[in-house]
Amino acid sequence: MILEHRIPAKYLLDIIKYELIIALLAGMGTRFLAVWFTDDLPVMPLGIPAFLGTSISVLLSFKMNQSYDRWWEGRKLWGSIVNDSRTLIIQLQSFMPVDQQLAVKKIAYRHIAWCYALGRSLRGLQTLKNTDHLLSGSEQKGVILQAHHPLAIMQLNARDLQRLRRNNAIDVLAHIHIQETIGRLTDSMGGVERINRTIFPSTYRLVLHFIIYLFIITLAISLKDISNLLVVPLLLLISAGFFFIEKIAFHLQDPFRNRPSDVPVTHIAEQIEKNIRQLLGEATIPEVSPPKNHYIM
Amino acid sequence: MILEHRIPAKYLLDIIKYELIIALLAGMGTRFLAVWFTDDLPVMPLGIPAFLGTSISVLLSFKMNQSYDRWWEGRKLWGSIVNDSRTLIIQLQSFMPVDQQLAVKKIAYRHIAWCYALGRSLRGLQTLKNTDHLLSGSEQKGVILQAHHPLAIMQLNARDLQRLRRNNAIDVLAHIHIQETIGRLTDSMGGVERINRTIFPSTYRLVLHFIIYLFIITLAISLKDISNLLVVPLLLLISAGFFFIEKIAFHLQDPFRNRPSDVPVTHIAEQIEKNIRQLLGEATIPEVSPPKNHYIM
Amino acid sequence: MILEHRIPAKYLLDIIKYELIIALLAGMGTRFLAVWFTDDLPVMPLGIPAFLGTSISVLLSFKMNQSYDRWWEGRKLWGSIVNDSRTLIIQLQSFMPVDQQLAVKKIAYRHIAWCYALGRSLRGLQTLKNTDHLLSGSEQKGVILQAHHPLAIMQLNARDLQRLRRNNAIDVLAHIHIQETIGRLTDSMGGVERINRTIFPSTYRLVLHFIIYLFIITLAISLKDISNLLVVPLLLLISAGFFFIEKIAFHLQDPFRNRPSDVPVTHIAEQIEKNIRQLLGEATIPEVSPPKNHYIM
Amino acid sequence: MILEHRIPAKYLLDIIKYELIIALLAGMGTRFLAVWFTDDLPVMPLGIPAFLGTSISVLLSFKMNQSYDRWWEGRKLWGSIVNDSRTLIIQLQSFMPVDQQLAVKKIAYRHIAWCYALGRSLRGLQTLKNTDHLLSGSEQKGVILQAHHPLAIMQLNARDLQRLRRNNAIDVLAHIHIQETIGRLTDSMGGVERINRTIFPSTYRLVLHFIIYLFIITLAISLKDISNLLVVPLLLLISAGFFFIEKIAFHLQDPFRNRPSDVPVTHIAEQIEKNIRQLLGEATIPEVSPPKNHYIM
Amino acid sequence: MILEHRIPAKYLLDIIKYELIIALLAGMGTRFLAVWFTDDLPVMPLGIPAFLGTSISVLLSFKMNQSYDRWWEGRKLWGSIVNDSRTLIIQLQSFMPVDQQLAVKKIAYRHIAWCYALGRSLRGLQTLKNTDHLLSGSEQKGVILQAHHPLAIMQLNARDLQRLRRNNAIDVLAHIHIQETIGRLTDSMGGVERINRTIFPSTYRLVLHFIIYLFIITLAISLKDISNLLVVPLLLLISAGFFFIEKIAFHLQDPFRNRPSDVPVTHIAEQIEKNIRQLLGEATIPEVSPPKNHYIM
Repeated sequence: MILEHRIPAKYLLDIIKYELIIALLAGMGTRFLAVWFTDDLPVMPLGIPAFLGTSISVLLSFKMNQSYDRWWEGRKLWGSIVNDSRTLIIQLQSFMPVDQQLAVKKIAYRHIAWCYALGRSLRGLQTLKNTDHLLSGSEQKGVILQAHHPLAIMQLNARDLQRLRRNNAIDVLAHIHIQETIGRLTDSMGGVERINRTIFPSTYRLVLHFIIYLFIITLAISLKDISNLLVVPLLLLISAGFFFIEKIAFHLQDPFRNRPSDVPVTHIAEQIEKNIRQLLGEATIPEVSPPKNHYIM
Repeated sequence: MILEHRIPAKYLLDIIKYELIIALLAGMGTRFLAVWFTDDLPVMPLGIPAFLGTSISVLLSFKMNQSYDRWWEGRKLWGSIVNDSRTLIIQLQSFMPVDQQLAVKKIAYRHIAWCYALGRSLRGLQTLKNTDHLLSGSEQKGVILQAHHPLAIMQLNARDLQRLRRNNAIDVLAHIHIQETIGRLTDSMGGVERINRTIFPSTYRLVLHFIIYLFIITLAISLKDISNLLVVPLLLLISAGFFFIEKIAFHLQDPFRNRPSDVPVTHIAEQIEKNIRQLLGEATIPEVSPPKNHYIM
Repeated sequence: MILEHRIPAKYLLDIIKYELIIALLAGMGTRFLAVWFTDDLPVMPLGIPAFLGTSISVLLSFKMNQSYDRWWEGRKLWGSIVNDSRTLIIQLQSFMPVDQQLAVKKIAYRHIAWCYALGRSLRGLQTLKNTDHLLSGSEQKGVILQAHHPLAIMQLNARDLQRLRRNNAIDVLAHIHIQETIGRLTDSMGGVERINRTIFPSTYRLVLHFIIYLFIITLAISLKDISNLLVVPLLLLISAGFFFIEKIAFHLQDPFRNRPSDVPVTHIAEQIEKNIRQLLGEATIPEVSPPKNHYIM
Repeated sequence: MILEHRIPAKYLLDIIKYELIIALLAGMGTRFLAVWFTDDLPVMPLGIPAFLGTSISVLLSFKMNQSYDRWWEGRKLWGSIVNDSRTLIIQLQSFMPVDQQLAVKKIAYRHIAWCYALGRSLRGLQTLKNTDHLLSGSEQKGVILQAHHPLAIMQLNARDLQRLRRNNAIDVLAHIHIQETIGRLTDSMGGVERINRTIFPSTYRLVLHFIIYLFIITLAISLKDISNLLVVPLLLLISAGFFFIEKIAFHLQDPFRNRPSDVPVTHIAEQIEKNIRQLLGEATIPEVSPPKNHYIM
Repeated sequence: MILEHRIPAKYLLDIIKYELIIALLAGMGTRFLAVWFTDDLPVMPLGIPAFLGTSISVLLSFKMNQSYDRWWEGRKLWGSIVNDSRTLIIQLQSFMPVDQQLAVKKIAYRHIAWCYALGRSLRGLQTLKNTDHLLSGSEQKGVILQAHHPLAIMQLNARDLQRLRRNNAIDVLAHIHIQETIGRLTDSMGGVERINRTIFPSTYRLVLHFIIYLFIITLAISLKDISNLLVVPLLLLISAGFFFIEKIAFHLQDPFRNRPSDVPVTHIAEQIEKNIRQLLGEATIPEVSPPKNHYIM
């Protein structure tokens, strides 16, 4: 997630540099050809690029909207994970007998590991890194053998609950009640995976780029009698605006790609760890140090 | 679902070829008539096609929005099917006694068959293909006699649960709890069928095409004094942009038509099979080979 | 619901004929006056009708959006009715003892009657037509005495469940579980009635028509020096586009008015009857014949 | 809620009369000054007011959208009240023993009183008017002493249920089941109060008006060489369209202000009374007479 | 929350003063340069700033929409807190025995403290201020030691419930039922924290500002032959409109920043205290005095 301050200009420029170079080439090439064939080339009325520009803003607005919705839905699902994590611990403490606090702690730690593993698996990273203090060695080995690591961790917790139920440590009503929370966590896991795997209609992006280049070319032709000194910066600045918004949308639409604009899943998992440790009554964890970059992950 | 890379140009062109031919004919015909009657035909101000073009982008934006919402809703419902499939198996394992693992497996396999059958039935394909390893021959025969195959498979599972309840293998609370998951799966099934059967207001599409052609004709008239060399490509390129977006929307609005832009229901059902087999503790299934086309089904 | 093919041109023209006649009169009248007072009447810049046209498309887009949402919400609620109908039967079969299949069938038939009656009551038709095979004569008579027929049918089913509960045919947990499904069906019934009774802000439509006519008149004045041969068809075609979209929206916003664009409630109720009969194990019902019109009801 | 027919022209004009007078003064004043300083005042290109006009339609569209959503959410919440009211009575009848019909009736009547009181309290009217046939005198007195009347009525019903539970007239499961319905009614009550108390960002309205006046003034300057006979009506008609839509939105955004455009809470409460009396088996209530105005409250 | 009346002009001007000064400098600087290089500088067609202006309104509309949605979601979540607070007390009174009214009161008071603490923690203020009448000194000390104060208060209540359950003051069903309400309150707490911590894509704002300045500069160039007397106010007024809407959106998107445009969390918490005290049967609290400012917090 990009923070509000300290965004370096380099970062901004990097985002659209390739598009700007192409735009520059397209614009310059068009103008060069326009000057060459100036006698044959008739007047291109400015109304054409003007309405194209308006249309681009409308089409960009749709894309921005849907991309933001995906990002926000991803954030909301991680928000549900935060809520259900807190609720899970409160429920375990409420419905398990006092002499089972060790079992509660074990399930709680495994759940924290699940949060980290889910975030890393979404980003295509090694899932079990930094979970040594949360999962035992044999558990890690068992999980790694499976295809879907977070699902395997979740099943370990479901099995623990089942064992506690068989030993009558919890009654059937409490078991169902806690199982429903695990069901909601399963839903959130499935939800973020859905966003991660579903490709936003990629043909739409192609058309959008196509129309932006059409805009640049028609604008270059229609301004062919105006000095390069004014037209080239104008072309670049306007298309920079369009490409920038398109790129923001493109980044938002896939919020788990290990990019600065990601939903900050590691940061959220750390918050969950802090909250759960507080609920378990562990000594207060030192506040995390402020971010050193213009983003948090 | 169309992947992000390797989209062949041929695929893109195929999508709008008929519309482009009609647009070309309409544009050329208009220009021919315009030149013929050039003395009688007065000036068409460019403002007319320009505002029509802006209006088209606004109206397209609405259509794109609603079509994307249908596609995304279809994807979400299949996401719920993934989640509830995982939850169903975890619940069965949690609430059924250890000696009933065979019954769990039977229900789980039948549920996988339901996923495949639902996807194929949405696409109007033969529903029970490739389910020989999941459904017994007698079950297949019974299902085929019914009008609605996925519903028949689901009823088989509901009946098994009822039998387990009567034999006191599960208690009434667990029965209701699992039945609620089956209820949610029924809702998802009904949801995707609703999207599949409900036709997006088809008159809207007619008006949209009508206005695009009106745009082409008025633009052709208003540019009648400009050389064909510039106007014909311009007409084709702008209308290509509009028709392309309209076609993307048209394809998205019906996400179960056995087209490359479909929600990839077969792929999702395969993922569900993999997840369920993992939860059942079966040997790890080999990773599916990467897609060979520019889309997955 | 209008089907995708075979929409007769007559149907399309009928939708907007009155608006087109008024538009023609307004346009011609304006031009006549404009020619009459041509010396006194100054130039109307084309920018005025052009921006009005763009504004109309924006305002239409809002209306189309909200109207489609109402139609789609109506369709979704009927989709929930389909889902909860299937769930209701599966629940009854799961939680009622085997010797009560006759009671299940009676409730199921009455529920089918409720579906038909709800659809017909939304459209203001005689509610109990074609339910002779589903409701007994005395039940029909009792229902007809009440003000709200579908609610009366639903109460009959609730009473049957209560009787079964008192006879211990079902236990209290199953009773509550099934009652919750009836509660959801009550919600869907209330939802479609809400859409049916709530009038979309009718003043918005007046303003929209007002602005479209303003557009026609200003366009007619600003093109007053151009030949009728071009301007009259242009005026008619553009306003036909606008009026058509407005009419589509107007029809969608009230989806239960016995019009071809309705949510096809009779068709859906027939599907529910087919599904329920399948779940009851009745002999397969012959497939319904394909629709003979360009719409299904 | 404004009905579809019989909207008097006077009502329409009253809505925007003040805005039109200001618009007229602004337009005329601008033109007067423009003529006075005509030599010094340069040309204002029509492009300025034209793009302002388009922008206004976009900004109005956002406002219309949000305002309609508030109105529709208010209507939906009252729809939920209708549904939960029906469900409450069906639940009471299902889960209370036959000899407690008097207790059911007492709770039902009090619930009807709650509906009327909530509607009137939203509109800032005297809450307990016309509830003499529903609440006893002592109940009315007790309620009036409290700050929040509908909440006090609801608590009376919750207490009755608690008493019935203590006397074992209902069991704990049914008690929880009915209490959940009361919880949903509490949510709906809180929802409509939230809409009623939350002020739509009022600064947005100021900016919108500001831009509309800017549009009128720039349009008046840019048309300064055109006769008053054409420009003044044009200015008034276009700004009438804008102001009208703004006013529709302004009225919709607060749907409980005792205005003709309100959500018709009294009418809905009457429907609930009719439904509940039908469910209680009371003699059919005569159909309400058709509305005498162009709106229902 | 800003009230509808009495908004001081100073407040309005303060909001956009920096942006206006930059806009003035940019516009004047451009005009100065334009006059200096007037011979070299060719004509900038008005179509460029005009379509940029339209695009800005479209892009602003997207931002306004999303920002308003965040604000409204924040308000809705606090609305849910109001509802669940009322429900919590009604549930406690319904399911706890009559002799436990003191325990009910203790939980209720602690819950009020949670509401105040949550609001203050969102705004980054000292959380436990003004809760001396609600929390005992030892509770306050315990809470302060934790990292997350509202979560710590909520855990105290969960523990009290658990203790009551162990003493059989409530049965397991009622315990689960009340715990579900606490779960919903946990969800609302997580929801408002999510809105508070998630930064709206800040790069979007940069692009929007960039395009507005581009608009000002191109407009200044294209009007370079028109008198400063007309152009400077025009530039300032139009950009004031744009910047104002952008600032409204910017303020709405973060509704818990201790600003006048905040969701009024203190005010809502006071309402909750009033409602809970009424439900507890405490003497009526005097009506809060009307707000003295143009906003409530």
